[in-house]
Amino acid sequence: MAIISLTTDFGEKDHFVGAVKGAVYREAEEVRIVDISHQVSPFNVEEAAYILGNAYRDFPEGSIHVYGVDSERNPDTRHIAVCFDGHYFVGADNGVMSLIIGEGTPEKMVEINLYNDMDTIFPCKDVFVRVACHIARGGKLEVVGKPIGELKSLKAFTPLLNTEQDTVTGHVVYVDNYGNVVTNISRQLFENVRRGRKFELYARNYRFEKIHAKYSDIVNFSIEKPLRDDDGKRLAVFNSAGYIELAMYRSNRDTVGGASSLLGLSYRDVVTVRFL
Amino acid sequence: MAIISLTTDFGEKDHFVGAVKGAVYREAEEVRIVDISHQVSPFNVEEAAYILGNAYRDFPEGSIHVYGVDSERNPDTRHIAVCFDGHYFVGADNGVMSLIIGEGTPEKMVEINLYNDMDTIFPCKDVFVRVACHIARGGKLEVVGKPIGELKSLKAFTPLLNTEQDTVTGHVVYVDNYGNVVTNISRQLFENVRRGRKFELYARNYRFEKIHAKYSDIVNFSIEKPLRDDDGKRLAVFNSAGYIELAMYRSNRDTVGGASSLLGLSYRDVVTVRFL
Amino acid sequence: MAIISLTTDFGEKDHFVGAVKGAVYREAEEVRIVDISHQVSPFNVEEAAYILGNAYRDFPEGSIHVYGVDSERNPDTRHIAVCFDGHYFVGADNGVMSLIIGEGTPEKMVEINLYNDMDTIFPCKDVFVRVACHIARGGKLEVVGKPIGELKSLKAFTPLLNTEQDTVTGHVVYVDNYGNVVTNISRQLFENVRRGRKFELYARNYRFEKIHAKYSDIVNFSIEKPLRDDDGKRLAVFNSAGYIELAMYRSNRDTVGGASSLLGLSYRDVVTVRFL
Repeated sequence: MAIISLTTDFGEKDHFVGAVKGAVYREAEEVRIVDISHQVSPFNVEEAAYILGNAYRDFPEGSIHVYGVDSERNPDTRHIAVCFDGHYFVGADNGVMSLIIGEGTPEKMVEINLYNDMDTIFPCKDVFVRVACHIARGGKLEVVGKPIGELKSLKAFTPLLNTEQDTVTGHVVYVDNYGNVVTNISRQLFENVRRGRKFELYARNYRFEKIHAKYSDIVNFSIEKPLRDDDGKRLAVFNSAGYIELAMYRSNRDTVGGASSLLGLSYRDVVTVRFL
Repeated sequence: MAIISLTTDFGEKDHFVGAVKGAVYREAEEVRIVDISHQVSPFNVEEAAYILGNAYRDFPEGSIHVYGVDSERNPDTRHIAVCFDGHYFVGADNGVMSLIIGEGTPEKMVEINLYNDMDTIFPCKDVFVRVACHIARGGKLEVVGKPIGELKSLKAFTPLLNTEQDTVTGHVVYVDNYGNVVTNISRQLFENVRRGRKFELYARNYRFEKIHAKYSDIVNFSIEKPLRDDDGKRLAVFNSAGYIELAMYRSNRDTVGGASSLLGLSYRDVVTVRFL
Repeated sequence: MAIISLTTDFGEKDHFVGAVKGAVYREAEEVRIVDISHQVSPFNVEEAAYILGNAYRDFPEGSIHVYGVDSERNPDTRHIAVCFDGHYFVGADNGVMSLIIGEGTPEKMVEINLYNDMDTIFPCKDVFVRVACHIARGGKLEVVGKPIGELKSLKAFTPLLNTEQDTVTGHVVYVDNYGNVVTNISRQLFENVRRGRKFELYARNYRFEKIHAKYSDIVNFSIEKPLRDDDGKRLAVFNSAGYIELAMYRSNRDTVGGASSLLGLSYRDVVTVRFL
């Protein structure tokens, strides 16, 4: 049973998501639809790429991922279908795919051309669903589009390494449901540059000297529970996506606040690692 | 595989939606459940009708749409199952169905009567699910209810055309996830009255002279991208449901605001089209 | 087709829920995934227990319920799989299960031990999904864990009955999507203590003398509709979970407010029933 995932900025109140799902089942009764997120900030292609890029790898190979963010076709923006990393992606060539692919190499890319001059204000439903269902039925990309060689490039912030090879400068790229602050410094980059050295991580005027494997690694379990007081302590971890993340232990963004509000760190803020 | 869609005001935090889905699978293992929305404003039958009315048409014919909004059975309100436009609808006779049907003609309508004096505080789970699963198994409406001839009528705002046939007065009927303002003036009504004339659309003190086919039609793509500055420009479009909608190009309701907040237009506000 | 339900504090924006679902389908293609809630307040095990405890009973027997709240394995917290009431539960031994089980007796309980020293910062995806899919394929709990005799006990507030047997003191345990205030005083306890007597229920300085079977029971339907004015009236009902709930008739938490804000009642506040 083919899987079609959905990542959009439609929100969950309006009829948009329901209409898209209805249209999928009308085209391909046996498909399985999986919501990844409908809460991408409106028109935010970086956020869409972050969310879909971190979710798709856990899906079975051959899954079809539709992204419905900033989807209108116009002289600036084509509609595309891409096979990459064993998965299919369908959406607008607005930078989402170039961010997901990064340094990788897509297996196949086409510009969708099944329009017959049809113009639509709801391309996710009227175009992407048709293409996704075509792929779900085993159809080839070449049938719905013409091969292309390049995508619109949208460069993510990339961490910088100074010439002395002792400082990595990265950025905050996402704030999650817990208020945790995700950076673009991967564990791999960190370890490659580190080569066993000690380090200090700075975010604003906060310093971190350890990057933990999980959140509760900061707890001293030899202290009896009622005497412990770890909630709200700040820490750095390698998160499940493999990136350095700054967190407050068991904090709640809606009440006491999370790392983002308590440390004053938002999207694009600088995080620095100095190796000693 | 039968499809049962759900449109409710239950929200997505509480156990209500999960309980309803569990109950469906207990009754009819092979059914496919599709969420349309659980974020209808509490007890808001107009909103439920707007959302379900705009979503159901994209589903396969024969789909069963359960709406769980203001659902209690009492001397004022019956429970009904309706076949309309090739789809089934199950819920309370509280105006939602009369708004969805509008000037249409339902194929069949019954008042649900499978109670045996059973009273329930959770009719969506205890009554609507049973009826929906009965229909999903191919059961007839007459088995779960007795035919009725009329529904409780709830008149939507309808646009008015003056006797001079040169002014249509409509209303805002919905504000969507992007803050866009949807009116009840359909493209069909607009074109019927227009008969090729020029026009001016007024909402508060804002004037619109064009109604676009899609949002990015307002962009002048001959200008180099870095010099363009279209985000936040206001425009009118025919939206995907076929109604006039007022929007701000690529705006974000949570940050800079959308058409609703920036133009000061909310539910029931007047929108006027004058033909010249 | 096995059912795996999900109850988490992941929220619906991030990639977490999508990644978990993808991982399920990668392990067990034919499983049916049902979202119960992803809006549990972060790390709030009482809330997770309330939501899952009230939803699971409506699912078919044999369903597998994964809860991903406060899930890290550490010296304080094991990962467990429990068979209880004909259903399976997979999560951390953090009190959620002891609250759901209450005075009941689980059929089987194991501590999950399929790690090989694997440590993960995303146990819901990397551990619970694997165990759930093992159960979905008909696997035994003993294969993925070793039997245990007790769970970490987290006592819920329990209502108190005074020695004169004329006063039950309970607490607010949940505020729902409508702002309605749910207490931990069950209909069964109430009727057992009541034995036909009159009663007065107090919450702050508000008094209730009736507990209704459904919300609209407070409406006097003999009055013509335009003259009625019941919206916003306060009332007590036995809710669909069988507990006393205080509500405002057809109120809206986002506009005029619900029982919680209007009566000033929040989580853990006292509610008293005096029998006369």
